[in-house]
Amino acid sequence: MSADIGLIGLAVMGQNLILNMADHGFTVCAYNRTVSKVDHFLANEAKGKSIIGAHSIKDLVSKLKRPRKVMLLVKAGNPVDWIIEELLPFLEKGDIIIDGGNSHFPDSNRRYEELTKKGILFVGSGVSGGEDGARLGPSLMPGGSPEAWPEIKDIFQSISAKADGEPCCDWVGPAGAGHYVKMVHNGIEYGDMQLICEAYDIMKRVGGFTDKEIGDVMETWNTGVLDSFLIEITRDILRFDDVDGTPLVEKIMDKAGQKGTGKWTAINALDLGMPVTLIGEAVFSRCLSALKDDRIRASKILSGPTIPANLITDRKQFIDDLEQALYASKIISYCQGFMLIREAAKTYGWELNFPSIALMWRGGCIIRSVFLGEITKAYRTNPDLENLLFDDFFKNAVTNAQSGWRKTIAMTTTYGIPTPAFSTALAFYDGYRSERLPANLLQAQRDYFGAHTFRVLPECASANLPLGEDIHNNWTGHGGNVSSSTYQA
Amino acid sequence: MSADIGLIGLAVMGQNLILNMADHGFTVCAYNRTVSKVDHFLANEAKGKSIIGAHSIKDLVSKLKRPRKVMLLVKAGNPVDWIIEELLPFLEKGDIIIDGGNSHFPDSNRRYEELTKKGILFVGSGVSGGEDGARLGPSLMPGGSPEAWPEIKDIFQSISAKADGEPCCDWVGPAGAGHYVKMVHNGIEYGDMQLICEAYDIMKRVGGFTDKEIGDVMETWNTGVLDSFLIEITRDILRFDDVDGTPLVEKIMDKAGQKGTGKWTAINALDLGMPVTLIGEAVFSRCLSALKDDRIRASKILSGPTIPANLITDRKQFIDDLEQALYASKIISYCQGFMLIREAAKTYGWELNFPSIALMWRGGCIIRSVFLGEITKAYRTNPDLENLLFDDFFKNAVTNAQSGWRKTIAMTTTYGIPTPAFSTALAFYDGYRSERLPANLLQAQRDYFGAHTFRVLPECASANLPLGEDIHNNWTGHGGNVSSSTYQA
Repeated sequence: MSADIGLIGLAVMGQNLILNMADHGFTVCAYNRTVSKVDHFLANEAKGKSIIGAHSIKDLVSKLKRPRKVMLLVKAGNPVDWIIEELLPFLEKGDIIIDGGNSHFPDSNRRYEELTKKGILFVGSGVSGGEDGARLGPSLMPGGSPEAWPEIKDIFQSISAKADGEPCCDWVGPAGAGHYVKMVHNGIEYGDMQLICEAYDIMKRVGGFTDKEIGDVMETWNTGVLDSFLIEITRDILRFDDVDGTPLVEKIMDKAGQKGTGKWTAINALDLGMPVTLIGEAVFSRCLSALKDDRIRASKILSGPTIPANLITDRKQFIDDLEQALYASKIISYCQGFMLIREAAKTYGWELNFPSIALMWRGGCIIRSVFLGEITKAYRTNPDLENLLFDDFFKNAVTNAQSGWRKTIAMTTTYGIPTPAFSTALAFYDGYRSERLPANLLQAQRDYFGAHTFRVLPECASANLPLGEDIHNNWTGHGGNVSSSTYQA
Repeated sequence: MSADIGLIGLAVMGQNLILNMADHGFTVCAYNRTVSKVDHFLANEAKGKSIIGAHSIKDLVSKLKRPRKVMLLVKAGNPVDWIIEELLPFLEKGDIIIDGGNSHFPDSNRRYEELTKKGILFVGSGVSGGEDGARLGPSLMPGGSPEAWPEIKDIFQSISAKADGEPCCDWVGPAGAGHYVKMVHNGIEYGDMQLICEAYDIMKRVGGFTDKEIGDVMETWNTGVLDSFLIEITRDILRFDDVDGTPLVEKIMDKAGQKGTGKWTAINALDLGMPVTLIGEAVFSRCLSALKDDRIRASKILSGPTIPANLITDRKQFIDDLEQALYASKIISYCQGFMLIREAAKTYGWELNFPSIALMWRGGCIIRSVFLGEITKAYRTNPDLENLLFDDFFKNAVTNAQSGWRKTIAMTTTYGIPTPAFSTALAFYDGYRSERLPANLLQAQRDYFGAHTFRVLPECASANLPLGEDIHNNWTGHGGNVSSSTYQA
């Protein structure tokens, strides 16, 4: 019996993907470095399904149909390279290695280059949806060697989630583009989670809502523009009681963990010069949450305003405003995320399919939402859309949301509730729609102290201030007219 | 005639440092790859001073007293390595190479390691103050081989700026610590500049102030808590008219340039997990300013609130509030910067002298200010100060500033003026003084979809929720109890 695909790595994601493939009629060969795991899996979860096992890499490869497809679900980093190294002696030209872990895209770029030279097709695929997603339908974001796509398309699109009848899996682009898009997905996920946490904090601290009441708000929101997986699980979490009948969530230590993909996105945004501020703030918020001891100490020393007991007189209005604040901030976050992907496509020379990216996130993954259906629509209407905010739907949505958005942040500012993600989203919106920003002064400062030069606004050009030239002004009346070439500040 | 020190690189910074050294009685040997520059410099700016020239690296080295001190003022990056490579054949054990360029600290770490193995002492020194600073007294931040310090101390402390009678130059620490501290200096400089730009923008757009009026405000501020070089030059810039008698600054293109050191600081903050949000926003603000074409387009599409003509009825109060907003935000920025340096010292194993770092920035450099005198005082009072906000002076300053700070941001939020740096500073303050942040919900979400586990608050620990253990809750009632080891989201 020869298998359609081999899968290496039997942790929860690997096991669930295998079971999912088997459910869709594919025969899968399972292998794990600790081979007892293979036997245990075959004897239990995999029993009675089209799943076979292997006790060595050689054994695994020998059981696969050609071109061989081997998918790795192992820890990102060196383990991926080690297993590729072990696989290579047994593979032939045209065989396919798929890395389904959370690899950093520069690693996938490198592996793509190395394997392409050896005639092996490489696919780096983002996989999102957690353990349930892997089992029942994940979002899959494959990129790499384009020749591999026709070979794996059937398996990938069969096992993936479906949204509005379409698979949440399509070919992303060359080299590490699949893992790149997955990275941005995770960054956006950081942002979405931070926004929901800020909304919860506002309801709790400003509105005095109980967790059950906040859960009810989430339930309502989940039927509107915010309808999404993360709002849904937040509702469930807020309603989940510990054995003593009080909400479990209130007993959880407020120190956020992170595994680095949000950080990667923020660093990439800095590298590409794209203002992806919301993800940046979301990552920094997790860092601040981790400084729990400092915060406990600071809470006893640093004062803030008192929140009046009856601040919220119109609860419905308060919740509506908050919903609009969350919605508008979320629009900004996705707008920034797609700006980043657009810039990456330009910088790395990748041709990317924007409507497909939105559709891949529409279902299966952690950020899945009705909202992503609207983004898919926007990019289908105009695949070259420069910015989500230029699409009528989103332009109108953010316009309508503005009043509640501004009221909410003015309130948290006044009453001392930290809303870094809400605030940065609004600052971005107001900056983005500003024809003039105060960077003219900043350029003057840089020219003053470092002779960094500036350019003139087209409408102000003159013989004195020629258009398109780097101009240095002698601001002080002394000192040189030499512009700086090596000094950086 | 043998020289006290050799200097390679005759761009504006190099020339000015040489002239500064000569003014202080040192004999300097100048060399430049394009040797005609050496001759031109000797025949002009250097004429009649204790400055000699060299026409080759060998020539330069032959003219130096032992142990030889060679300072490089060349473009950061490969050129530094190339010149070190060229120098090495002519140097002896115990000779000193000083890199005075804006090198990235990991490069300085590497050069320190490589040169230490060869018996050559390496110093990576931050140099700040622009061309005027280099000529008349820069801030110098040397780090590297500690044995080099006694050899260069006299030259460095003689030519450096003095503040309150003390040199703005001291030994920073080992390896790349000097360039590290210079990097953070530059990051803070990005933040200071952004804050001043936001204040200018608010006065202009909300208050309807002319540039001359804003210049007058800067003049007043420069006699108070904000007394600093950047406020001073901003005053001068706002008063500088073009040939047609209108302010030059208003003709300058509002696209900010950057040379990367602010970005390095933000990336390092992300890497070390420290919430240095203000520098992050300052860097992103420059990125957003650079998207001028997008902004012009967006300004015609995206709406915002109208600013009432007579919004500001009490101009003095408006300016006082703004001053407090700027002051408090600046305190937060420096607090974040020192948190980062503290974490770097821990992570990289560097012993750093915090009062000295503040004193080095007190004068000579771009961020020099009266304010840094207060930071020096705070660290001299308590060298182990965990956070600037725990010092009474800064705690009281931020407490007193709060009302104006909140009023200012509530106003910009309401009326659509982007203040990303002001806003993130306040969000940090409110987050830092929060004993509880909503990260408990975030941890619950991560555990729900990815089995990432959470910990329990000490006061809520129970048999069910054991203290100090990684707990996974089965939120859905189905699915595994297996916690995730490989899945990352």
